[in-house]
Amino acid sequence: MRKIAILGSTGSVGKQTLEVADNQKDIEVTALAAGSNICLLEEQIRKFHPKIACVWREDKARELAASVKDLPVRIVSGMEGLIEAATESSVEIVVTAIVGMIGIRPTIAAIEAGKDIALANKETLVTAGHIIMPLAKERGVKILPVDSEHSAIFQCLNGEDKKAIHKILLTASGGPFRGKTRKELESVQVEDALNHPNWSMGRKITIDSSTMVNKGLEVMEAKWLFGVEMEQVQVVIQPKSVIHSMVEFEDGAVMAQLGTPDMKLPIQYALFYPERRFLPGDRLDFWSINQITFEKPDMVNFPGLKLAYIAGKKGGTLPTVFNAANERAVAKFLNREISYPTITDMIEGAMNGHTVKENPTVEDILEAEAAAYEYIESRW
Amino acid sequence: MRKIAILGSTGSVGKQTLEVADNQKDIEVTALAAGSNICLLEEQIRKFHPKIACVWREDKARELAASVKDLPVRIVSGMEGLIEAATESSVEIVVTAIVGMIGIRPTIAAIEAGKDIALANKETLVTAGHIIMPLAKERGVKILPVDSEHSAIFQCLNGEDKKAIHKILLTASGGPFRGKTRKELESVQVEDALNHPNWSMGRKITIDSSTMVNKGLEVMEAKWLFGVEMEQVQVVIQPKSVIHSMVEFEDGAVMAQLGTPDMKLPIQYALFYPERRFLPGDRLDFWSINQITFEKPDMVNFPGLKLAYIAGKKGGTLPTVFNAANERAVAKFLNREISYPTITDMIEGAMNGHTVKENPTVEDILEAEAAAYEYIESRW
Repeated sequence: MRKIAILGSTGSVGKQTLEVADNQKDIEVTALAAGSNICLLEEQIRKFHPKIACVWREDKARELAASVKDLPVRIVSGMEGLIEAATESSVEIVVTAIVGMIGIRPTIAAIEAGKDIALANKETLVTAGHIIMPLAKERGVKILPVDSEHSAIFQCLNGEDKKAIHKILLTASGGPFRGKTRKELESVQVEDALNHPNWSMGRKITIDSSTMVNKGLEVMEAKWLFGVEMEQVQVVIQPKSVIHSMVEFEDGAVMAQLGTPDMKLPIQYALFYPERRFLPGDRLDFWSINQITFEKPDMVNFPGLKLAYIAGKKGGTLPTVFNAANERAVAKFLNREISYPTITDMIEGAMNGHTVKENPTVEDILEAEAAAYEYIESRW
Repeated sequence: MRKIAILGSTGSVGKQTLEVADNQKDIEVTALAAGSNICLLEEQIRKFHPKIACVWREDKARELAASVKDLPVRIVSGMEGLIEAATESSVEIVVTAIVGMIGIRPTIAAIEAGKDIALANKETLVTAGHIIMPLAKERGVKILPVDSEHSAIFQCLNGEDKKAIHKILLTASGGPFRGKTRKELESVQVEDALNHPNWSMGRKITIDSSTMVNKGLEVMEAKWLFGVEMEQVQVVIQPKSVIHSMVEFEDGAVMAQLGTPDMKLPIQYALFYPERRFLPGDRLDFWSINQITFEKPDMVNFPGLKLAYIAGKKGGTLPTVFNAANERAVAKFLNREISYPTITDMIEGAMNGHTVKENPTVEDILEAEAAAYEYIESRW
């Protein structure tokens, strides 16, 4: 029995993790955590019988506790509850499918408690990779990527020596606006941006995907996960998302992982690594794919990726500012307060206005986040 | 120091193996064997200082012995000499780059002597896979594929459990006549067939590549090397030969190996497996590749592949007949005695005229070969 905790169980990755758990009879869901969707969380509790469940909002937690008082589940709340769920003594793997920098503390707590991490929270490594990776090494825990691209790279590295990596080829669909100019992007509406060509995802990540900011965050994550330099991670636009990413080795061989756009594959791979098991679902059909095309990313009209390289190379608190400014900017765009290209303008402004602190602590990171939020509010 | 023997050192794979040995300072070339090109073999002896060198033709061996009598190398000849070279006591890996069924006995002898095999001789597994694979397992020796496609599959399987293989996707360029009808193939000349679009290889394999017979042999080899059924090996036409082959696993993930058409990569991978080392040469450039296309193989106008599936499924001596008939037919085509489509007609005729012997010994295999030769001579 693999005992897992899912932080963010009512989100897209969380729900798919539970589908995987449902298909594989030797997974026990020991802990669940959600933000405020207690309706769905209650359903999940009744189906999977966790020992502990956390709701971020305290009022919602009380409401849920009342609804499930017939069950032997402990309901907790807030950051303290989240950490309790992540460190529940019998848990072996923590799936961090929570969105935002809120994921950092419970991830650190889980690593300190010796839990393997199935990592679906981007912010953790982007902002605190310099803390997380050495800590995981020290505690002997595995950081197992759940993101489709990083899982692909992880699969390409299975059985290989990381020292033989020459470069990582991180693929990107290029999003729905690939080929458009900055001028054309001015008129992009929220509805256009939420329409991703290949993957069905949450709202924020769909926008991040269209601006290439998501790819920028992935480049930074890859740097930490695989111990390479930013320059070793090259983004390749491959519009159909058939190739999920590639690794070029010292000998010139390129290993690639291909598949259908199904998040359950990387989730299941992380939970059972290095074992592969049957997974129900569509298979790649090369006759219907017909062709795969490659393009260079457009860093001029989509400056999000260029800014990510700058943030990732500089390091310190700058990736936090990149991420926090983007978070706030996307919220404003979704709220129809700013135009589409203003999202990356806001990131650039926040980065330019920031004095980088090297080797930041978690407190420094949270301060940099708050400062970036404040900067954005004061200017726009 | 890795001590290697190269059987077929003056051929294309043999020469490239020596290039790899020359680049990597910890390879010692202990034994060499060639057919009759004693000029080149003498050069190789003077450069690499093997302990033993074999020349297939006895007269040529005597001639060479006279030329190199200043060196401490023992010159041997014939099948006995070939086996002596393959089993020289200090040799660790035998590269079987010899062409034809002549490779079977020395390969068996090398396995029995506990040498790992870097396999570049197709006939060994096609005709005697049922003898070779269990023997290798029994003696605990590795069969390391050198062929570009099989090496790709082998690389995709690194770190994986073979039981998780769902199918193998063996890629094929489709050759220079892809898209042509049987009628159009009637007029194909030797010069046209020798003009392969992607790989620079020997004459026979270039013809085999154009008829898809080579791909058929590779499907049979893959069956033995990776312990799968013929039905699990699917041929995918991918005209630019960028993807060297793929494996689809139980979970739906497809792993692929991509690269430039450089045989030194699979050779070096086999010699240092599982270690990867820097290899000088071109790297894949995704901007110039631009696109990869996939097509179904045309088994109607190119019946060589269909016949290979029949031979491989039936097994016994039938793959030997497939191979021997093709060998003779290609020789006749290169000699301008028969038309291009007659190559596969001859294979089909020989297969239809053959009574299959199950689980054949090496003697049975060589008899089936002789019978197929005889059949071809008597009919055409």
